[in-house]
Amino acid sequence: MNKHIDLTCIGIIHTPYKDLKNMPIQPVGAKDTEGTLELAPEYAAGLKDLEGFSHVYLLYHFHKAGEMKLEVVPYMDTHTRGVFSTRSPLRPGRIGLSIVEVVRVEDNVVHLRGVDVLDGTPLLDIKPYIPQFDQRDNVRTGWMCKDCEDVANARSDDRFV
Amino acid sequence: MNKHIDLTCIGIIHTPYKDLKNMPIQPVGAKDTEGTLELAPEYAAGLKDLEGFSHVYLLYHFHKAGEMKLEVVPYMDTHTRGVFSTRSPLRPGRIGLSIVEVVRVEDNVVHLRGVDVLDGTPLLDIKPYIPQFDQRDNVRTGWMCKDCEDVANARSDDRFV
Repeated sequence: MNKHIDLTCIGIIHTPYKDLKNMPIQPVGAKDTEGTLELAPEYAAGLKDLEGFSHVYLLYHFHKAGEMKLEVVPYMDTHTRGVFSTRSPLRPGRIGLSIVEVVRVEDNVVHLRGVDVLDGTPLLDIKPYIPQFDQRDNVRTGWMCKDCEDVANARSDDRFV
Repeated sequence: MNKHIDLTCIGIIHTPYKDLKNMPIQPVGAKDTEGTLELAPEYAAGLKDLEGFSHVYLLYHFHKAGEMKLEVVPYMDTHTRGVFSTRSPLRPGRIGLSIVEVVRVEDNVVHLRGVDVLDGTPLLDIKPYIPQFDQRDNVRTGWMCKDCEDVANARSDDRFV
């Protein structure tokens, strides 16, 4: 197995969140937060048709996350959990995923709403969110979501810095 | 902007799909397809608690995709579209995303169902699928989904090889 994969940073995400502490922990906790995605200009042609989509996935690099941990205590829990059953940034792959709203597209800049991402985060991909592909029924969510209603109000501390 | 990001391949995805041609184009077209995810053994502790979740995101490397194209004709359309408004593998970031079912976990191996991925694909991350975080209402899907019901029957050809 080749352990190293060289990926391309395609842009930078700009948001009001300058510090990993006291951030929303999911986009649903950042509903009104506006930000922009500044795509490297050579990829701007790839943004054609994007404005027709109300929501996109952002895939990005957790560039400021601390050392990888295989078991973590997530924000929404008090027990230690395997990292792949959490959204913790201290994961081996160091890739983050957020579903955010597209406000408008101007040249190589996408204006976004509902962004829970640290300012300056390197962007890896943008994909359209398509309910027919991306929504599932009869979902079990393990340890999570006894208190899921609270996720909108939950804020980060320094455990993943 | 640092254009290169060195990420870690954390495992390999095994499926019956040995050829990029004639594959399902989304997990909804591969509902009964079983596969396994073989995590590098050093990360096995991170799989604790994963079996409690019925669905996970797989993030993976489109390692066999052809050269990046900023505009493509997607499988579900006849027009050229900006690549970021499609799920084409010929994207600059070369990262794929599939939502699949977890059947069971055995040591460092996760048995999966509904896998639309090429055999031998390098795995970048596993994240739990959580409807409260991941489902959105009032979604617009631009050019897509006039014929979305057909996605389960659509199969790949050689346009992205």
